[in-house]
Amino acid sequence: MGVHRCRKCAADSVINMPQHKLALCGEHFLAWVEKSTFDFIHKHRMFEPEDRVLVAVSGGKDSLSLWAILLKLGFHADGLYIDLGIDDGCGYSKRSVDYARKFAQSVSPAAELHVVDVGALYGKTVAELAARRAGGRKKLCSVCGLVKRHEMNRAARELGYPVLATGHNLDDEAAVLFGNTLRWEVEYLVRQAPVLPSGEHGLMKRVKPLARFYERETAAYAIVSNIDYIEEECPFSKGATSIRLKESLNSMEIGSPGTKLNFYFSFLRARKSGIFPGCERPALKACEKCGQATAIPGLCAFCRLTDPEIASGRENDGQEGLPGLENASETDISRL
Amino acid sequence: MGVHRCRKCAADSVINMPQHKLALCGEHFLAWVEKSTFDFIHKHRMFEPEDRVLVAVSGGKDSLSLWAILLKLGFHADGLYIDLGIDDGCGYSKRSVDYARKFAQSVSPAAELHVVDVGALYGKTVAELAARRAGGRKKLCSVCGLVKRHEMNRAARELGYPVLATGHNLDDEAAVLFGNTLRWEVEYLVRQAPVLPSGEHGLMKRVKPLARFYERETAAYAIVSNIDYIEEECPFSKGATSIRLKESLNSMEIGSPGTKLNFYFSFLRARKSGIFPGCERPALKACEKCGQATAIPGLCAFCRLTDPEIASGRENDGQEGLPGLENASETDISRL
Repeated sequence: MGVHRCRKCAADSVINMPQHKLALCGEHFLAWVEKSTFDFIHKHRMFEPEDRVLVAVSGGKDSLSLWAILLKLGFHADGLYIDLGIDDGCGYSKRSVDYARKFAQSVSPAAELHVVDVGALYGKTVAELAARRAGGRKKLCSVCGLVKRHEMNRAARELGYPVLATGHNLDDEAAVLFGNTLRWEVEYLVRQAPVLPSGEHGLMKRVKPLARFYERETAAYAIVSNIDYIEEECPFSKGATSIRLKESLNSMEIGSPGTKLNFYFSFLRARKSGIFPGCERPALKACEKCGQATAIPGLCAFCRLTDPEIASGRENDGQEGLPGLENASETDISRL
Repeated sequence: MGVHRCRKCAADSVINMPQHKLALCGEHFLAWVEKSTFDFIHKHRMFEPEDRVLVAVSGGKDSLSLWAILLKLGFHADGLYIDLGIDDGCGYSKRSVDYARKFAQSVSPAAELHVVDVGALYGKTVAELAARRAGGRKKLCSVCGLVKRHEMNRAARELGYPVLATGHNLDDEAAVLFGNTLRWEVEYLVRQAPVLPSGEHGLMKRVKPLARFYERETAAYAIVSNIDYIEEECPFSKGATSIRLKESLNSMEIGSPGTKLNFYFSFLRARKSGIFPGCERPALKACEKCGQATAIPGLCAFCRLTDPEIASGRENDGQEGLPGLENASETDISRL
């Protein structure tokens, strides 16, 4: 930092991006990120100026930067914080929501923050829901992902936002792509994209407007913009495969700047050009309990996870498969 | 080593293979490698007991192990050494061929070694051929690969071997796959397999019987079998992308044993199941000079590289593209 000069104004740069052969000062870096995000949104037809967008915020650099950028670009963007009840001994979720609230106050009344408290709504935190299942941390991360996807979609649907935006950056996307490629999981590969279209039964459109930025770029955006964000990663992410995947890609990136960018975008081009035929998404059904879209008949994975009767049945017989659906109780679920 | 006991006989093991959850003593390890190679050859229909096989040997652990294994399994396997004239100041190619010759003597008269001297045949070593082109080491590696493929095929064809076998191990194959995946080079991905079939105009079948073994397994095979091999890598390989790709995959492997194996074999399954449509190999033509199969009309890449007139024309106009084919001289080429 500071060694290179800004390409635009020759001031000291705050960031050098070898993959773009581009160094920029603070002011021009912010403008570059915002313009690039706008172009990316436009190119991938993520949403239009008149659309209300719900931004899933975690209190971290990516999602708060995303929210800030969308507001700066003049979009109507509100925030959604899903309180997963994660506690590292000093209230990780509680501290995270404080960052989201603080940011929301700084942009009020132009934007508002919605908060979903999973523990209050469903009687158990994510860690408690995951504890019912074998598999340790890996299972916890997958349960957490399931809960977030379900609740994000429900919130967007019930609050009337046609589009959900998440703060996934290029390092996230490239790591997921790398993981799926290491196992050649074609059914996952075919569905990875910066835009996941809406579908039947209230499946909302999901978009990733920051998918073209490296993690260090979204971090730089937050820092240069004076956005206060939670710096610690989720306490459960230690040793996660995603971190090793990122490290592995980063070591390739150091030897050859642009590796991650090329990996993701050459994949998107190959995907668009029609590799992976015959991997169409199965027709979606409505969950018999929550009504949201699901690929499996009867109850969706989230309702099977959170239903007390099914959960206790699973505990008793130790099965991981589909529980008997006729046992599913039709209890009411609190809404936002 | 030595900490685990052999799965078969409870003796001290010489190798533990976490990806297979298998530790074996020297004797049972050799038997396991040989049996696994036989099964792999059979499963992928590489060749039949009556086929004469030409093994491309470099003097390294993989190719000499391959030759030894094929002979042990009772196949009729002869060796081919291509002297590329690589000199690291102490005669890398000269030292390498000595290892190949020494092994050949140990198996004579059951098998014989053919040697092709590129410098003597074409008037220039690989380094001299590559020096005509811009691009440094990367270009040298690509020229070297081109020369080896051309000369291997020519030797097999002229000496009457229907099958060429190379010593590529899983680390080699996984690294190439990773490199092609990082750029999503679909036209290369579609052609990566342990068996490359024969084709028109004398394109010989090429097989990789060791593609299921980790590099440390082929090294262990050579060591346990007392095969003397050249330990140094090619002096030009320093800093090669292939080495970084291998390191990157190795770091994933440490965290999750079997990563490389799953990466390669899940790819082969996905490839077989018909991803990558519309990427058929273009119809091959016969090179107007050497008569070997080529995808480009006129002269093949090897003949354009080695033809003195074309080469000097390229030097003069500095073009990297196809030179004017009407200028190609029809000089005679020495044969094996």
